[in-house]
Amino acid sequence: MEKLKNIPWQEKPENCNTVMWRYSENPIIDRYTIPSSNSIFNSAVVPYKDGYAGVFRCDNKAVQMNIFAGFSKNGIDWEINHEPIDFKAGNTQMIDSDYKYDPRVVFIEDRYWITWCNGYHGPTIGIGYTFDFKEFFQCENAFLPFNRNGVLFPKKINGKYAMLSRPSDNGHTPFGDIYISYSPDMKYWGEHRCVMKVAPFEQSAWQCTKIGAGPIPILTDDGWLVFYHGVIATCNGFRYSIGAALLDENEPDRVKYRSQPYLMAPAELYELTGDVPNVIFPCAAIHSEKEDKLALYYGAADTVTAIAFGKLREIVNFVKNNSL
Amino acid sequence: MEKLKNIPWQEKPENCNTVMWRYSENPIIDRYTIPSSNSIFNSAVVPYKDGYAGVFRCDNKAVQMNIFAGFSKNGIDWEINHEPIDFKAGNTQMIDSDYKYDPRVVFIEDRYWITWCNGYHGPTIGIGYTFDFKEFFQCENAFLPFNRNGVLFPKKINGKYAMLSRPSDNGHTPFGDIYISYSPDMKYWGEHRCVMKVAPFEQSAWQCTKIGAGPIPILTDDGWLVFYHGVIATCNGFRYSIGAALLDENEPDRVKYRSQPYLMAPAELYELTGDVPNVIFPCAAIHSEKEDKLALYYGAADTVTAIAFGKLREIVNFVKNNSL
Amino acid sequence: MEKLKNIPWQEKPENCNTVMWRYSENPIIDRYTIPSSNSIFNSAVVPYKDGYAGVFRCDNKAVQMNIFAGFSKNGIDWEINHEPIDFKAGNTQMIDSDYKYDPRVVFIEDRYWITWCNGYHGPTIGIGYTFDFKEFFQCENAFLPFNRNGVLFPKKINGKYAMLSRPSDNGHTPFGDIYISYSPDMKYWGEHRCVMKVAPFEQSAWQCTKIGAGPIPILTDDGWLVFYHGVIATCNGFRYSIGAALLDENEPDRVKYRSQPYLMAPAELYELTGDVPNVIFPCAAIHSEKEDKLALYYGAADTVTAIAFGKLREIVNFVKNNSL
Amino acid sequence: MEKLKNIPWQEKPENCNTVMWRYSENPIIDRYTIPSSNSIFNSAVVPYKDGYAGVFRCDNKAVQMNIFAGFSKNGIDWEINHEPIDFKAGNTQMIDSDYKYDPRVVFIEDRYWITWCNGYHGPTIGIGYTFDFKEFFQCENAFLPFNRNGVLFPKKINGKYAMLSRPSDNGHTPFGDIYISYSPDMKYWGEHRCVMKVAPFEQSAWQCTKIGAGPIPILTDDGWLVFYHGVIATCNGFRYSIGAALLDENEPDRVKYRSQPYLMAPAELYELTGDVPNVIFPCAAIHSEKEDKLALYYGAADTVTAIAFGKLREIVNFVKNNSL
Amino acid sequence: MEKLKNIPWQEKPENCNTVMWRYSENPIIDRYTIPSSNSIFNSAVVPYKDGYAGVFRCDNKAVQMNIFAGFSKNGIDWEINHEPIDFKAGNTQMIDSDYKYDPRVVFIEDRYWITWCNGYHGPTIGIGYTFDFKEFFQCENAFLPFNRNGVLFPKKINGKYAMLSRPSDNGHTPFGDIYISYSPDMKYWGEHRCVMKVAPFEQSAWQCTKIGAGPIPILTDDGWLVFYHGVIATCNGFRYSIGAALLDENEPDRVKYRSQPYLMAPAELYELTGDVPNVIFPCAAIHSEKEDKLALYYGAADTVTAIAFGKLREIVNFVKNNSL
Amino acid sequence: MEKLKNIPWQEKPENCNTVMWRYSENPIIDRYTIPSSNSIFNSAVVPYKDGYAGVFRCDNKAVQMNIFAGFSKNGIDWEINHEPIDFKAGNTQMIDSDYKYDPRVVFIEDRYWITWCNGYHGPTIGIGYTFDFKEFFQCENAFLPFNRNGVLFPKKINGKYAMLSRPSDNGHTPFGDIYISYSPDMKYWGEHRCVMKVAPFEQSAWQCTKIGAGPIPILTDDGWLVFYHGVIATCNGFRYSIGAALLDENEPDRVKYRSQPYLMAPAELYELTGDVPNVIFPCAAIHSEKEDKLALYYGAADTVTAIAFGKLREIVNFVKNNSL
Repeated sequence: MEKLKNIPWQEKPENCNTVMWRYSENPIIDRYTIPSSNSIFNSAVVPYKDGYAGVFRCDNKAVQMNIFAGFSKNGIDWEINHEPIDFKAGNTQMIDSDYKYDPRVVFIEDRYWITWCNGYHGPTIGIGYTFDFKEFFQCENAFLPFNRNGVLFPKKINGKYAMLSRPSDNGHTPFGDIYISYSPDMKYWGEHRCVMKVAPFEQSAWQCTKIGAGPIPILTDDGWLVFYHGVIATCNGFRYSIGAALLDENEPDRVKYRSQPYLMAPAELYELTGDVPNVIFPCAAIHSEKEDKLALYYGAADTVTAIAFGKLREIVNFVKNNSL
Repeated sequence: MEKLKNIPWQEKPENCNTVMWRYSENPIIDRYTIPSSNSIFNSAVVPYKDGYAGVFRCDNKAVQMNIFAGFSKNGIDWEINHEPIDFKAGNTQMIDSDYKYDPRVVFIEDRYWITWCNGYHGPTIGIGYTFDFKEFFQCENAFLPFNRNGVLFPKKINGKYAMLSRPSDNGHTPFGDIYISYSPDMKYWGEHRCVMKVAPFEQSAWQCTKIGAGPIPILTDDGWLVFYHGVIATCNGFRYSIGAALLDENEPDRVKYRSQPYLMAPAELYELTGDVPNVIFPCAAIHSEKEDKLALYYGAADTVTAIAFGKLREIVNFVKNNSL
Repeated sequence: MEKLKNIPWQEKPENCNTVMWRYSENPIIDRYTIPSSNSIFNSAVVPYKDGYAGVFRCDNKAVQMNIFAGFSKNGIDWEINHEPIDFKAGNTQMIDSDYKYDPRVVFIEDRYWITWCNGYHGPTIGIGYTFDFKEFFQCENAFLPFNRNGVLFPKKINGKYAMLSRPSDNGHTPFGDIYISYSPDMKYWGEHRCVMKVAPFEQSAWQCTKIGAGPIPILTDDGWLVFYHGVIATCNGFRYSIGAALLDENEPDRVKYRSQPYLMAPAELYELTGDVPNVIFPCAAIHSEKEDKLALYYGAADTVTAIAFGKLREIVNFVKNNSL
Repeated sequence: MEKLKNIPWQEKPENCNTVMWRYSENPIIDRYTIPSSNSIFNSAVVPYKDGYAGVFRCDNKAVQMNIFAGFSKNGIDWEINHEPIDFKAGNTQMIDSDYKYDPRVVFIEDRYWITWCNGYHGPTIGIGYTFDFKEFFQCENAFLPFNRNGVLFPKKINGKYAMLSRPSDNGHTPFGDIYISYSPDMKYWGEHRCVMKVAPFEQSAWQCTKIGAGPIPILTDDGWLVFYHGVIATCNGFRYSIGAALLDENEPDRVKYRSQPYLMAPAELYELTGDVPNVIFPCAAIHSEKEDKLALYYGAADTVTAIAFGKLREIVNFVKNNSL
Repeated sequence: MEKLKNIPWQEKPENCNTVMWRYSENPIIDRYTIPSSNSIFNSAVVPYKDGYAGVFRCDNKAVQMNIFAGFSKNGIDWEINHEPIDFKAGNTQMIDSDYKYDPRVVFIEDRYWITWCNGYHGPTIGIGYTFDFKEFFQCENAFLPFNRNGVLFPKKINGKYAMLSRPSDNGHTPFGDIYISYSPDMKYWGEHRCVMKVAPFEQSAWQCTKIGAGPIPILTDDGWLVFYHGVIATCNGFRYSIGAALLDENEPDRVKYRSQPYLMAPAELYELTGDVPNVIFPCAAIHSEKEDKLALYYGAADTVTAIAFGKLREIVNFVKNNSL
Repeated sequence: MEKLKNIPWQEKPENCNTVMWRYSENPIIDRYTIPSSNSIFNSAVVPYKDGYAGVFRCDNKAVQMNIFAGFSKNGIDWEINHEPIDFKAGNTQMIDSDYKYDPRVVFIEDRYWITWCNGYHGPTIGIGYTFDFKEFFQCENAFLPFNRNGVLFPKKINGKYAMLSRPSDNGHTPFGDIYISYSPDMKYWGEHRCVMKVAPFEQSAWQCTKIGAGPIPILTDDGWLVFYHGVIATCNGFRYSIGAALLDENEPDRVKYRSQPYLMAPAELYELTGDVPNVIFPCAAIHSEKEDKLALYYGAADTVTAIAFGKLREIVNFVKNNSL
């Protein structure tokens, strides 16, 4: 991965006693940033050239969901294309795509892979790739519907591509656990294993209804650091918070540690109000192991995009010391 | 219709790129404006004498729903009666009315007709009239329960009164399409036709759960302009937005155009928070074709009343150019 | 009405202590009686010429619902047409009819009127007429959807046609009360009144979930005798039984008596098993006041057609003496 | 009860026309007041020594629910222990307690009794006591699951302890009425009576879905003053408001008066947004009959703790004059 | 307990390989056995004088639920009173009883105690007693609603009355575990303990939705033998089967053994069809330890009453050898 | 495939006018055929040596679901093993299998492949193989949960294994369409395509709720003949019927014909009553193209196993002539 010169960063506020803290100028991307948009959130960011590239979920004012490319020098100020990504055929004669949302992006070997929730008779995991964020290629869907939150590992594991996902149903799925699947070729998938399930209500209620992987896993000395969202069903709807887990490096279906407390939960006005109140949903993270910095991108209230920061080492230790 | 001297108006803000924009002093009517009220919203307004008269939904602090008359010189500052409208018998021996809400008002021929959601063993469409907004007469309900959002056309069509409505059920109806019915006499109704149904999720998700007519239709060169509310069911409840359609002048069950994007969706704090968050619900519009001005009255968060503005011609063109 | 020479009849069995009893050769019409049928039930019968004519609900083997004409000398052995009724336009340019089911037939003045549950964007009440059971004419639907069990009175009341119906929703409606509406012309309907609602569970549980009118009301010295179905929701589904009420002759929204016990409930194997177990559903009755005989036609298990008998006078007295 | 020197108080604002008003510095306890907390709300307060003691519901950042002791000089500024209450066995060999929430505290005879919602195979009513808010003892649960909002009377009635409660189910109970039960010994409970049920939607919709007792009842010349929460189910979730009732002094299952309008409903931003929007939930009140002052503690949005004030006499009269 | 001269009995059929078998003349009580009845089932039987007495659930033809006394010489042929039991006040000023169903009867010390599901603002456990099955006395309800299947132990345990029950909700409860409670005086109840919960679907699906105690527990050398019903929710409704458990004699909340396979499940036509198909529900057992005989009374399809037989010793061994 | 000497067969009854007919001695396998069984149904059969082998779903009396091998000379009289199949590792280190049900069996190239619904954190498609029906090997699950009705094609298509399946949820799935997926190696699966969806209610209601493939597809001159089950949701539960479709030989996601009427629907007592009434569910077919005979094995009422017969050519023509 390229050297990161400009990782977005702000030091921890003085009176802050939590392991992660919000950017003071949040949200960094407003809902109406491009002319057609109703909301911009749950989007992916990756270092690219001397800055950053991103794939953004922009719902338009017909509330159609699609993904758009964008670019930034500093990871905070973004130029987002006004037209959605136009895919060419990758390893498939082009399949239907009724909608696209919640993208993730990762560089593996020679290209940037994109996964997203793809509308094919219901939600499932779409896969595409690009070399330059200008030309994009779409591949076969990874799975049968219904599935959401497909997240690739940033390198092959035991010679195979590996993907986390969350089997779902065709509505506002009221359940959801994280699984892993493997592929020799990004076309055929198998060896499906359950990685982690929702927590018991009594032990960790913020993640008792459903969970799903967020940003691309980060390899640390303690294994793969996976940020994920957890959901509790209150009498006034779903509330999405953020936690993290550490998976075994070589057998990533083995959970070594998993945060019992959340790392972040909805608390700011731009998280508490919007199209879907009380949602924070992470889809990307930029980190520098050398500088021990991590910037986490998350959607807020299904409406805007925000950033939070943390020390990578502190986060790992927090997960280890507060494990379920 | 009387000449409009004082149509409420504010020019479009400079950086605004949408076809409609909000009044800067919204909300215009606070929830506690009259002593008994818990909320004042989803109300009807009509030019009257040298100003405006209105019929207002005021839920009291027992959360009983009723409608109240009110008056204004400028359409923005309102005096609302402290007692609800007391109806006398019109064309019926008085029928039960457990509650009244979401009124509309229209002048036809010689009098002001009022329709509302009337509680008769569940919600259905109540009809009444007044000549002076002092004495009110109640007629037979138009339909069997369950129905909501009964909206009269401002003139007879092919010699008959015409009414839009939305068949419903006895709860928080999770479905709803717009129908039209005709009556020779405002007492017996028939010739029911389906006008328009919810949109497919993939094409226009903001109106995929239910839709219902809003203000009295406005006759334009392109047919009847009908503002309507559209609803999407998110995992945190219903979200009500505003769109518009153009119906054929003489066969109003024929939809000529219908906005794929919404015209307005909840975005301001007084729309995002309140008794029912994320609701904007239009019930009345004042317009001047000559001045090409339109003021749209809408309830916000089922709590307060607000106004938005638009150029009538621009709105019509927007619907034609962005049709589903 | 024509003289009835051959009213179907069987004397009450000796050890029978109930007010109604079943025909010993039930069911009288098997599910596969015509080549295309999956089931024949919930059908209407009327004296015609020197025998009987009927309109039958026959669901075909694609489980499409339609209505068919049929004829019988004795009211028990039936010849049913193999093709469904083909309607011509009556008082409407022909409207959609996605399906037709649960017909009722009545002679008023000069013709036989048929009402049924008509599929027009959901169930509502279709109306048609015939003079000869060969040529049929379809009129405007009486109501907006959603409605079922539209049953005409056999003569005008206060100069207007009168119809009972049960407002419903768009699925397996879990609620339902009986209303009455009036029409001067069989085209426009109004003056809707609630006639009777479900009974409290503690008082009469068999009719605590929903109720709906069955055969054409029969005028007696004690008012209109209305057989109706009542439904209880058990943990294994809906159970449909049969009761009766007496409505005021001139103000038929006034209930004079209403049976607290059921008259009949599912008990025979052809009622307990079939496409929808535990359903008996009356749609027609033949009676002779002079002979004090009544034959009640009912669908059993949504699969076959059966008959039960009773003395008209005894039934009326039972309702009066066992009133809710 | 001890003399109250420092009852929290603020005079009614000039333009306020309601019987209760909020503290201008609300919320008094922030969600992050102690290091582990996600939220602090629905908590109990009682005069203690020359100030106040309290038992606080603090959900931690794993969203585990527990109760914590705290102390204050003035009832507004609180020191809350960082560790939850550690109970010793009272009249039981210690039973399971999966979680504890929504505590109430009352002094009877010689000690402070605490009741709360106790997790024992689902929610039921836990009972404990303390003499000094340092050492705490847990007793047998009052009832079988499922139950919530157990509230003791501040003295024995007819020689027996008396407790209000709300039978529930094992989820976000969509129903709920207030019952009373009696015990000779705080161990065995019986003589269960229904005290008051939800109100009909048409009469008082804010309390039409469920109701539950709040603070310890206050004995007045007009009987027991009981503040309670009432809930309405909107299409966007439950909304919790506050009302009051007056129960007969000696036969407290007899309701003398009950407020048709609410006393308070969610309206401030800290009530409209938070973990569970649109919730105000009272659990404690401090009053001085001599000074005619009452301070009501309530949880806001299941996130923070707030106070409202009222004149005791005015509140009682309001309930009497606006009774359902 | 009196000597049993005539315990109902039939030897095991030759080719039968199950531990229990049905009476060849089942059902023993038809649904129409008394004039008013719609169904007679879920009833209790106890040795009385030189024969048997019973308390029977007879739903009448209005489907009102009540309990009736009856008598038999041989336990198979029954005379059931035509009028329901008329209770006098026992230890309560008479409380409401909207309905009564599913009785159990047991002799303790000096009288016959009856428990049943009592309608008091929903189902809860009613208690009564009789000395002679002619005069009956009603006591306070044991618990707050909602509860069902209250079953007393036939002797005091540690000096207190003990009762099994199943906390429920106010509908067709889709959950249910068995608890025990104690009372010093049959008026106040406490010391509630969970006894056994539903089984995991993978281990014993017939009892994975809800379970509830059936007949009075039988003391054996291996502890209390408790027959209970278990329920699985199929896509076509609830299916009730019968199993058994052995509880510790002195600490009956301790389960020693519990049958993984059912003892009996619906299989005969009178169990598979009726008002509620696929229900067998045991409420009473007659046994003779000396003769090693047991006759189990159970309701079939919520319609009729049937008997099954088994060797007491074989049943106990079966439970021990096939324990969950 | 081996020559079939003894294909089970019975000529069409004389008065039968349907394309398929039942075996007169149905059911062929009773629910209690092996000592542990509660029910034997939804099972697979394949020609083997000079007779037939089968894999049977036998739920035991704990209602645990598992699959058992069995053998028959004539396809009608079966010997079923008393112990379930004990799998060894095939292409996986053995994964969890909480339960197994609804097996299918097919011979491809050198071995018999078995697929079934496998319990791995919910239902998904298990795969195994055997050479001799004595030793069995289990492979990786084909898909992530949740899935049911995985059915292999009897030969590779375009060089890859092909499997039909029905994505589901974790309960009594109320939706379901048929998809196809491909695999180069029986381990990794991809190229998922939707094959056919439920039919519109108005066109073919028996298959409007969900559909799922049944027996192994049969290659005919008109393409792949696929029997499938279709489900309608009545107010008394799901009703399962049987239809057939013809898929393109080389592009089997292309439907050429699909039966609008059902081929068979529940009508016999052993189909209408049992553990799950009104279910007929086909899992296997034996056919002889030369003799133009087909025997269809189906589960009845989730309780027993039955057979129906048809002329292969007639069935194909029926599907072509009655296509949706």
